[in-house]
Amino acid sequence: MTRLNWGMIGGGEGSQIGPAHRLGALADGNFTLAAGALDADPARGKAYAQRLGVAADRAYGDWHEMLEGERNRADRVDLVTVATPNSTHFEITRAFLEAGFHVLCEKPMTMTVEEGEEIVRVARASGRICAVNYCYSAYPMVREMRAMVRSGQVGRVRLVVTNFSHGHHGDATDADNPRVRWRYDPAMAGVSGQFADCGIHALHMASFIAGDQVEKVSADFASTISSRVLEDDAMVNFRMAGGTVGRLWTSSVAIGRQHGFDIQVFGETGGMRWASEHPNQVLYTPVGGRTQIMEKGESGLSDDAARLSRVAIAHPEGFPLAVANIYVDLAAAIRGEARDGLPGAEDGLRSMAAVYASVESARAQGAWVDARPPMLR
Amino acid sequence: MTRLNWGMIGGGEGSQIGPAHRLGALADGNFTLAAGALDADPARGKAYAQRLGVAADRAYGDWHEMLEGERNRADRVDLVTVATPNSTHFEITRAFLEAGFHVLCEKPMTMTVEEGEEIVRVARASGRICAVNYCYSAYPMVREMRAMVRSGQVGRVRLVVTNFSHGHHGDATDADNPRVRWRYDPAMAGVSGQFADCGIHALHMASFIAGDQVEKVSADFASTISSRVLEDDAMVNFRMAGGTVGRLWTSSVAIGRQHGFDIQVFGETGGMRWASEHPNQVLYTPVGGRTQIMEKGESGLSDDAARLSRVAIAHPEGFPLAVANIYVDLAAAIRGEARDGLPGAEDGLRSMAAVYASVESARAQGAWVDARPPMLR
Amino acid sequence: MTRLNWGMIGGGEGSQIGPAHRLGALADGNFTLAAGALDADPARGKAYAQRLGVAADRAYGDWHEMLEGERNRADRVDLVTVATPNSTHFEITRAFLEAGFHVLCEKPMTMTVEEGEEIVRVARASGRICAVNYCYSAYPMVREMRAMVRSGQVGRVRLVVTNFSHGHHGDATDADNPRVRWRYDPAMAGVSGQFADCGIHALHMASFIAGDQVEKVSADFASTISSRVLEDDAMVNFRMAGGTVGRLWTSSVAIGRQHGFDIQVFGETGGMRWASEHPNQVLYTPVGGRTQIMEKGESGLSDDAARLSRVAIAHPEGFPLAVANIYVDLAAAIRGEARDGLPGAEDGLRSMAAVYASVESARAQGAWVDARPPMLR
Amino acid sequence: MTRLNWGMIGGGEGSQIGPAHRLGALADGNFTLAAGALDADPARGKAYAQRLGVAADRAYGDWHEMLEGERNRADRVDLVTVATPNSTHFEITRAFLEAGFHVLCEKPMTMTVEEGEEIVRVARASGRICAVNYCYSAYPMVREMRAMVRSGQVGRVRLVVTNFSHGHHGDATDADNPRVRWRYDPAMAGVSGQFADCGIHALHMASFIAGDQVEKVSADFASTISSRVLEDDAMVNFRMAGGTVGRLWTSSVAIGRQHGFDIQVFGETGGMRWASEHPNQVLYTPVGGRTQIMEKGESGLSDDAARLSRVAIAHPEGFPLAVANIYVDLAAAIRGEARDGLPGAEDGLRSMAAVYASVESARAQGAWVDARPPMLR
Repeated sequence: MTRLNWGMIGGGEGSQIGPAHRLGALADGNFTLAAGALDADPARGKAYAQRLGVAADRAYGDWHEMLEGERNRADRVDLVTVATPNSTHFEITRAFLEAGFHVLCEKPMTMTVEEGEEIVRVARASGRICAVNYCYSAYPMVREMRAMVRSGQVGRVRLVVTNFSHGHHGDATDADNPRVRWRYDPAMAGVSGQFADCGIHALHMASFIAGDQVEKVSADFASTISSRVLEDDAMVNFRMAGGTVGRLWTSSVAIGRQHGFDIQVFGETGGMRWASEHPNQVLYTPVGGRTQIMEKGESGLSDDAARLSRVAIAHPEGFPLAVANIYVDLAAAIRGEARDGLPGAEDGLRSMAAVYASVESARAQGAWVDARPPMLR
Repeated sequence: MTRLNWGMIGGGEGSQIGPAHRLGALADGNFTLAAGALDADPARGKAYAQRLGVAADRAYGDWHEMLEGERNRADRVDLVTVATPNSTHFEITRAFLEAGFHVLCEKPMTMTVEEGEEIVRVARASGRICAVNYCYSAYPMVREMRAMVRSGQVGRVRLVVTNFSHGHHGDATDADNPRVRWRYDPAMAGVSGQFADCGIHALHMASFIAGDQVEKVSADFASTISSRVLEDDAMVNFRMAGGTVGRLWTSSVAIGRQHGFDIQVFGETGGMRWASEHPNQVLYTPVGGRTQIMEKGESGLSDDAARLSRVAIAHPEGFPLAVANIYVDLAAAIRGEARDGLPGAEDGLRSMAAVYASVESARAQGAWVDARPPMLR
Repeated sequence: MTRLNWGMIGGGEGSQIGPAHRLGALADGNFTLAAGALDADPARGKAYAQRLGVAADRAYGDWHEMLEGERNRADRVDLVTVATPNSTHFEITRAFLEAGFHVLCEKPMTMTVEEGEEIVRVARASGRICAVNYCYSAYPMVREMRAMVRSGQVGRVRLVVTNFSHGHHGDATDADNPRVRWRYDPAMAGVSGQFADCGIHALHMASFIAGDQVEKVSADFASTISSRVLEDDAMVNFRMAGGTVGRLWTSSVAIGRQHGFDIQVFGETGGMRWASEHPNQVLYTPVGGRTQIMEKGESGLSDDAARLSRVAIAHPEGFPLAVANIYVDLAAAIRGEARDGLPGAEDGLRSMAAVYASVESARAQGAWVDARPPMLR
Repeated sequence: MTRLNWGMIGGGEGSQIGPAHRLGALADGNFTLAAGALDADPARGKAYAQRLGVAADRAYGDWHEMLEGERNRADRVDLVTVATPNSTHFEITRAFLEAGFHVLCEKPMTMTVEEGEEIVRVARASGRICAVNYCYSAYPMVREMRAMVRSGQVGRVRLVVTNFSHGHHGDATDADNPRVRWRYDPAMAGVSGQFADCGIHALHMASFIAGDQVEKVSADFASTISSRVLEDDAMVNFRMAGGTVGRLWTSSVAIGRQHGFDIQVFGETGGMRWASEHPNQVLYTPVGGRTQIMEKGESGLSDDAARLSRVAIAHPEGFPLAVANIYVDLAAAIRGEARDGLPGAEDGLRSMAAVYASVESARAQGAWVDARPPMLR
């Protein structure tokens, strides 16, 4: 199978996100890094791209150059990954979609609901794929949970409880460190801090597994370090369209939690638990029965879970390969196969609507607020 | 040391709670079961009490008989445990306090805030001990967490996150089972189901460890099994007097969780985690450092934690001995020693106030409601 | 039911073992502490016994006095617990059995195989119960594993792997501390250090669960702290009569392990795992299936497991109640009920034979040595 | 940096090992798959290689063709991976080393000690890298343990205890399945079954972390499924040159264990534990202190551990990236940097010597046997 051409915007030298995307895109041999505008500093970006094997004429100084350079090539990139600062996701994603490229956008897809709706419209009009990197949903055992809900194995989902917490911003003496501070500064982070940063992964996954959408939210935000304008701890209660009750806690001051993302799904006939720290297992309990430890790679898993695992049972696979799974599905989708597990522009939009609704609810002392994007009501 | 005389009301043959209290009271040799009114059926109760070694003239048919019978004895019982149906706790506790007995009351102490205030008044006037069986707070490692907060080891407490969930009421086909149904029936359970049953243990512990009181709550209640009037799942956000943020989730439809009670306490300089399923450990993380596994029985623990452990490190102690620890402290307090870890009437009252405030908040769509009992504002 | 009279030898003030036995005997209301010779210092022992509620005339100065004093009483003690220094177990146990008392002896039952055979002979002749305190075997979930093997749920047992390790003797700078040193000194500890101290618990449990006896052993002993004459680390391979393969590791220099005792049992159709640190669960895996988490208190457990649990599922029970379970079974056996789970004199003898065989094997560079007591071959 | 050319022998379509090596080699952008002889069926192998992007003239029918084809190319492959059936590793590895290629050989490197010595001689003479894929040693936290021993953090290593067990061959009804049976057939597997298959990973790691070599072994082998000639369960005690005591258990009939590889290292001043199921953590206990949870990605780790981690703390990395780490070190070593963590030909030789010594010991009833290869004594 011919490799697809891939281009990357952002993810320059020294970034955390760049290597994760490159490993994700390259690991399975589906993509070749063919073009890039990797850095805010054009010269650094060009040099780095070339060190990564990009031809000199496709090592661009910025995304405008890249758009112009790639637009008319016969071998133009099949997919563009947008891994730039959050506030630029919208315009870059829109521009590349409009030019007919498939796009994988880092989260958050946009900074406002209106921008999100615009991306959905543009993506629909373009017929291109606009994926958003909710990579946790691409873990094989998360896919398995979704498949179990779909097949009715746990019955109607009554309740989803999810947490995404860490303590890496819990040191008040480090709060002015620029790498930390910006997340709580509305000028840079927008209307929400920790919820927009981590919480939306959890909220997306709740919908992803339950197969339903969030309708309304009631939120409690707190800035436990008082110098912060935006929240470093948030609780969001929600309801889904089908009545599912949701509870989501997210925090960046939970000292001792490293990056704890877990989700519990409770249905009429069974419960399930998954945690990102041990992503290769699901604890499944049929009502009235014993808890069973499900393992990635065991026989009898759904096609989706089986397909997205690379090594045998009990050989753990981790975060970078969850990102890689997004690229596996992108490659398949670009080649024309159906991949309904790929998070898309509507997911990105729904997240943004939930962020704004939660902010509004928190300001209104926990009042319930409609969390649906206007265009999807 | 002479044994104290102990009497029990309720906890008859076949009850779950009776054996737990008897083991708790007898395990350490502080008490002798001297009197009892153990059963709603007088004859059964008398017979059972005698089989347990109570003298025939102190095996009573009901609590009124017992009050009359014990009141004027020279060797009257030093302590009365009230383990009857919830709605009777108030009048029995009040009557025995007024008659000058020390009382250990099962939770909930009362069914209303007004009753709770009455108990506090009576207890104060009597000079007797009125303890409430928040037995989880008597685990050695819970006491250790309290001591760590007191000594400043984690700094000011910013955030407490606690869960108390199980799935034993998650089977809709079993929802009409009388042993399950009454908990969701206002005629029998009062204004709250799962929160009043399990949630108040968690709320008490949050205050117990943090050393502060809940001031206001914002609640979201759900009856995920639609035939239920009272909630089987609840989320309660709270704030403490000193500004501590709280998150409490409780559920009885969390299929796969057995009786999962855990609490995380996050302060300025450290975080801690304890779970009732592994009650002999605390995970402690100093800010910027590694998580440490603290063990019951290790050297250097607080006096309280050391005193309430019976066997060496890594020999697990469980729930029945947490109940026994309540009795250890009661014996000491009756003998005149200070035991400030004993949950008392004010704790029982605060719980009831929090229940009513949470119910009111849930009905008001999550509005924040003052959770302090009027007499303690 | 009338309480049984209980007497204790050893377990004086400040000992670890005394409180564990008293809690064990008293917790369930089966026994009254009626007599005792608690201390090597007669005066201290008498005073302490009286403080524990023993009548002055039954607070004895030593075990000879107690034997004489109790022998002819109408209300003589029904059961004597022997919790004295190891080297005295033999003569005290023999004397009380010969005088017609039931005895619970701490492990090791004797210091030699010959003494062990003598106890077996005396016990048989007396018709009295001679139990040995292999208390780990009385955890409900250990009983459940035994029941599962008996009922054929895991098929023929192919393999048992067990570890009992801690690191409390791992500090060379503390090796001369008298509380540590004696265990490695042949003059005080006999022929074996760590294997005789902890390993025999594991070896007993292997036989207990598998329902078979150890036939031969191949051992490797090491003194990792060179000043020690006796081993502080041992590996013992064994074979059971029915061909089951066994692996037993025990260590006292495993720094970081607190008191880790675990056992895995692998049969033709399933595997099981239990660990003393989490004694209320068993992991059970049917061949070709998923691992299931079994919980103390779940429905469907064997009679033995159900009978020996006091509180509901997910309320942990710990070590002191495992000791108490030994007393529960003793009370039943004294009252004439069959209790085949009680470890007895033959178990104590087999342990001693295995210790001597392992010592011989280790000296013979791992050669296989018959581990059966001569009288039981 | 220019990519290195990489060639692969074996690992054809449908194999488990092929994708693991390709992901490992390609993930970090160090290598390009330039040549391959992937399949025993020449036509299938050529076709598959081309589908993977290999040029037609470098898609070879077998390794002889590949050797001839690559030998004289200017752009010949820099590294050859040998992932063919075990019995062919020796001749292929030798041939490519002699022709001046760097080689990564799957384990076992050879089938006999003599072959192993030959490879060591050839590798030394060639000046080429001959690596062996003991990939578990390339996990960041395994490297950290090695670094901790080197820096003296746990003192002299007294004891290493390691297990590598699974239950995937525990079903007797599946024992004649050819995919299982060959491992216990001397005609195909050589002198050892489970120990040679899994045990040598554990034995290598013991030496790798302790920084010392195995000198002698005492083994107990069992065929718990009686139709098997070779062992499916083995216990190997060992001693290292510096006196370290070793215990290694490996099994393929441990039903319920998935692929459980763990290692505990106990030194004079601390203990450590790592398990392949949770490879991103190490439990470290300083003598007299609390157990600490070390996390991949935490600050202050050794250069080696830091270098071999790709994503931030608490983002798990798994088995495929441990393989990739071997390729990272190979790329560096080929480029002239020192990489002393790479397992080499001497490691492969030592494993084979330990296998033969263990077989001899097991046949001699556990007698201690020198496990050093003659040429390295």
